[in-house]
Amino acid sequence: MNTFKSVTVFAPATVANVGSAFDVLGFALESPGDTVTASWSTLCGVQISEIKGSSIQLPTDPDKNTASVSVQTLLRNVSKEDWKTLRLDERGISLSIQKGLPIGSGLGSSSASTVAAVVAANTLLGELFNKSDLLPFAMEGERIACGAAHADNVAPSLLGGFILIRSYSPLDIIPLPCPSSLYVALITPDIEVRTSDARRILKQAVPLEDAIKQWGNVAALIAGIFKNDINLIGRSLEDRIIEPNRADLIPGFYDLRKTAHDEGALGFAISGSGPTTFAVCASEETAQKVAKALTSTCNKLGLEGRSFYSRINPLGAVVTETMV
Amino acid sequence: MNTFKSVTVFAPATVANVGSAFDVLGFALESPGDTVTASWSTLCGVQISEIKGSSIQLPTDPDKNTASVSVQTLLRNVSKEDWKTLRLDERGISLSIQKGLPIGSGLGSSSASTVAAVVAANTLLGELFNKSDLLPFAMEGERIACGAAHADNVAPSLLGGFILIRSYSPLDIIPLPCPSSLYVALITPDIEVRTSDARRILKQAVPLEDAIKQWGNVAALIAGIFKNDINLIGRSLEDRIIEPNRADLIPGFYDLRKTAHDEGALGFAISGSGPTTFAVCASEETAQKVAKALTSTCNKLGLEGRSFYSRINPLGAVVTETMV
Repeated sequence: MNTFKSVTVFAPATVANVGSAFDVLGFALESPGDTVTASWSTLCGVQISEIKGSSIQLPTDPDKNTASVSVQTLLRNVSKEDWKTLRLDERGISLSIQKGLPIGSGLGSSSASTVAAVVAANTLLGELFNKSDLLPFAMEGERIACGAAHADNVAPSLLGGFILIRSYSPLDIIPLPCPSSLYVALITPDIEVRTSDARRILKQAVPLEDAIKQWGNVAALIAGIFKNDINLIGRSLEDRIIEPNRADLIPGFYDLRKTAHDEGALGFAISGSGPTTFAVCASEETAQKVAKALTSTCNKLGLEGRSFYSRINPLGAVVTETMV
Repeated sequence: MNTFKSVTVFAPATVANVGSAFDVLGFALESPGDTVTASWSTLCGVQISEIKGSSIQLPTDPDKNTASVSVQTLLRNVSKEDWKTLRLDERGISLSIQKGLPIGSGLGSSSASTVAAVVAANTLLGELFNKSDLLPFAMEGERIACGAAHADNVAPSLLGGFILIRSYSPLDIIPLPCPSSLYVALITPDIEVRTSDARRILKQAVPLEDAIKQWGNVAALIAGIFKNDINLIGRSLEDRIIEPNRADLIPGFYDLRKTAHDEGALGFAISGSGPTTFAVCASEETAQKVAKALTSTCNKLGLEGRSFYSRINPLGAVVTETMV
């Protein structure tokens, strides 16, 4: 216990609101991601020492930054006995955040920082908690970031793979297998989609017929993930409820979707609340081709856009460096 | 080809509207089921020679009985070449139906007869079609029985196991694994629930929040089936949309559910549109205990009721006898 001077953790970008499985499913990408170093500090509590790599000013007030809030929550859950051993009334934890993924892109940017921070702090403290026990602490960070303690980004960023959130009360998190044949090609057009707009635009009542079609697709999506059937995953992303509204917030959404399908993608959907979109592909070659074509279509629409592709990250957050 | 004088087929009872997975999932029971014998007849077309074991008068007009309608549909799909070989303009098929499961119980009674008939006829014809190709013909029988060509009873009765119906247009049927640890205890109270009432009572708009909770449960139910995790299957049956309405059609529904849970069941739901209900159990011993307690509760409510238990039937319809 308590053997490191500092611990550095990488936590990956994630895709939530996976097509039909709105609000209940997320998965982790291999990259990009955020990196957080947690070190001991002579100041009690949690501090943010620096935030690098962000084009936007992020809060350094420990009560307002998602990363520090989640570490504060972790500390509040340290038992009295451990608290004494760790001498936490004499010293605190300082966080240095290196943003590797763009903020407001729909790739779980705040979640990645939060998860990296909480895993780094837990490792610094001598792994007082199991990895999966850290989820509620990271969810508190999400509450600061988006007003609700969602788990569909933090859970896959923490644990890797596809993670299903069946219920929040009680919290019921179900890790799914990692389809080895699945590649996703993604593009982040250089526009802003406000999560508040993306929430506001949702219709609060759904025709029963559409709801039934949606849960048929959700069921098939889960079956596709278990069967490693990329075609089934792709066609089950079909979302009749959320996407028809949210697509309007992403200029050229339908052109991007057509491009993806023309180049061999098997499904296409919005990542998070956008503006990133992702295409489901059955090979690296197709994913590479789709990513390239998505950039080209984006440019033709008069927009800048960054495209990339990734497999599913089976590990989630990992310690990348320690100092003893 | 064409070597049998008659073929007898057993097709099992099925549970559709599996809790949260309303309208998209069904599974087959080991028993009870219906048995149909298809024989050559000198009369062209399809005849119903007899219907045994039914307390209700069922139509023997070949255009109105679900079993004969599905065999008529099969015959319309026989190719010209096969038609000539089989000399089907000189003779027809006669169906003898032995009902083994009660009509209007929510156990797919019409589907079992339909599936048994179509498999028996296909075997008599020398297996012109693969088993799964028979599904659209059986669905035509369902159209006669309930006004719509549903597949959530006929598909599992035909193919066995758990069957997911992702889409009807195009038809997209996904067989799921058969959880080997799963037992279901069922009770059929001696009351009538009209399918038309059960349909009429449904609310045509669903709050988005409930729809999301429902597809979270549906996703988890599919995961439970793949993982053979009976606890997960049980708790994911939770249905916030259909059951609260339909439970009112089944007197004592909440008493039966409490009994099932008290005796160790892990989940409870309505089978089809009722009045049969089923409880998810993780062992034969529990299923036996639950079935017994359900009868006792039913009797205390002043109702007659038949309870039984079953594993999941992995085979679906099977040929039980042939005459050469």
